[in-house]
Amino acid sequence: MSKNLEVSALLDFYGQMLTDKQREAVEYYYNDDLSLGEIAENIGISRQGVRDSIKRAETVMFDMEKKLRIAEKTRMVQKSLDTIRANINIIDERNMKIYRSDVINESIKVILNELGKLDSE
Amino acid sequence: MSKNLEVSALLDFYGQMLTDKQREAVEYYYNDDLSLGEIAENIGISRQGVRDSIKRAETVMFDMEKKLRIAEKTRMVQKSLDTIRANINIIDERNMKIYRSDVINESIKVILNELGKLDSE
Repeated sequence: MSKNLEVSALLDFYGQMLTDKQREAVEYYYNDDLSLGEIAENIGISRQGVRDSIKRAETVMFDMEKKLRIAEKTRMVQKSLDTIRANINIIDERNMKIYRSDVINESIKVILNELGKLDSE
Repeated sequence: MSKNLEVSALLDFYGQMLTDKQREAVEYYYNDDLSLGEIAENIGISRQGVRDSIKRAETVMFDMEKKLRIAEKTRMVQKSLDTIRANINIIDERNMKIYRSDVINESIKVILNELGKLDSE
């Protein structure tokens, strides 16, 4: 069974939509890198049962991503936020070095605080 | 059957997860404000069938929002983006009036462009 690197990312977004058993199997397999045999032993089902759970979970998550695009949209948002932060830093540096405006400084602080909140979302 | 204003919002995020019939019924009911009888006539099923489709669709969408929180997160992101935009405007105004820095102006343009992209997401 080949591993798909996208699955770990999808698990962050869609893990709540899986059954406990599916989620557990996928986490062991993709995040903890256990073998199917080890997972089977840990959760007390057959090796084939583990394989089926993982395959089913992958299907559910890829289907949801195709329809909802949460992972894709999150990556696009993150890219925009990175660009915004880089440009805020440029403004901040200019302001600190040359203009020393308290008003601009205050607005920069507010923006950086919001960017921090968005990062933790 | 009482209307829940949240349903229209959820439809934007989770509409793709409904069956065609469910989505059609919910759109007619919540977005176009048709009566159950009118919807029944339009899509050629019974009035009770329409009611069941809508109830089922609502359950699916509320369950998904409880687990995935896309609508809630989107609202939080939108609020942060509004605050960022308001503060970029403050910086822009200050820069235009007093400092006239091309570097700051250029960074502001880039940021506003990214905010525009994020709004259309």
